[in-house]
Amino acid sequence: MKPKGLLLVLSGPSGAGKGTICQGLLEKRQDLAYSVSCTTRTPRKGEVSGVNYIFTNRENFEDMIKNNGFLEYADVYGNYYGTPRSYVLEQLNAGKDVVLEIDTQGALQVKKNFPDGVFVFIVPPSLDELSKRIYKRGTDAEDVIKKRLRAATSELAYASKYDYIVINDEAEKATLKVSNIMDVEHLRVGRTFYIVDEICNRCKK
Amino acid sequence: MKPKGLLLVLSGPSGAGKGTICQGLLEKRQDLAYSVSCTTRTPRKGEVSGVNYIFTNRENFEDMIKNNGFLEYADVYGNYYGTPRSYVLEQLNAGKDVVLEIDTQGALQVKKNFPDGVFVFIVPPSLDELSKRIYKRGTDAEDVIKKRLRAATSELAYASKYDYIVINDEAEKATLKVSNIMDVEHLRVGRTFYIVDEICNRCKK
Repeated sequence: MKPKGLLLVLSGPSGAGKGTICQGLLEKRQDLAYSVSCTTRTPRKGEVSGVNYIFTNRENFEDMIKNNGFLEYADVYGNYYGTPRSYVLEQLNAGKDVVLEIDTQGALQVKKNFPDGVFVFIVPPSLDELSKRIYKRGTDAEDVIKKRLRAATSELAYASKYDYIVINDEAEKATLKVSNIMDVEHLRVGRTFYIVDEICNRCKK
Repeated sequence: MKPKGLLLVLSGPSGAGKGTICQGLLEKRQDLAYSVSCTTRTPRKGEVSGVNYIFTNRENFEDMIKNNGFLEYADVYGNYYGTPRSYVLEQLNAGKDVVLEIDTQGALQVKKNFPDGVFVFIVPPSLDELSKRIYKRGTDAEDVIKKRLRAATSELAYASKYDYIVINDEAEKATLKVSNIMDVEHLRVGRTFYIVDEICNRCKK
């Protein structure tokens, strides 16, 4: 019996570096599938449906909501974003691990629907570093940056809802830590007991 | 605030190789303390009290039992064996990890007294391999070996009570897996949340 794959949910405040870690994991772990989100927003130049997002219209998206087609979804400033349930379940049932890089609200929805997932919260090493990263990132106005920094710090309060907290001081080290979490979670008794069961069945023969 | 150390409980059937893994861990992890068991049996030639065992008499041992001085203990064929609580707690409170290498009955007692421990069950890759290892080990008579093999296989049923199952096909790889479990367990939210708390406290200032 091949065990099911692992659902890894990565989140954390803006500026924590979860995107870089997610990319690093996909490079490091050939067997890891990335779940592409679905959205109703207009594609930006260069964005390809099925790669960056699955682009769809509101009617389709709302039909999928009605049919329980999302593991999580949200309406962000008039655009829907969601994680299609079917792709994730297909991969997991085929024994493939799947990573979702989503915000805390989405992660809490997934946890309700899928408590067996592994929930990892990425945090910056310090507030100063977080603010540096947010400043560095863009050409946003001072008040937008401040708003983003406030939002990021208030997101930290959700850390306690996760299984693991990984401090991202260096992206490579943090990626390795998350990769180790995946290896170790595969050794959890719920995911390995079938091996002992197989040995025991052979004892009885 | 420095977090407490981790209590690692290693067990598994005879022939699974938990002793080798325990030794490997102590070499690999400088910060890991080994809890020496207490016993009332007579020291064998070359055995040193405080190194191999803490040797004591039945009266002292029974006093310690009365004073809740053991994390676990057992009477094995008329000799007591036990894990002194005070040493383990001192190390953990000082932030040091501690490993106990004990049998399944002992491990279940520790779990009752110390549910925060990390319980790892070591299994042989197959029954054939287990039987090979038990045969290889000694000059025991055929019926003793068969008895030991039956006991080992019946111990496998306890695997489901543990947190992790590690298959010991190669001692070095299995040791690395257990070492990774320790690293990853240190990232668990209950053991890392204080870091987020510190960041948040600084936000409020």
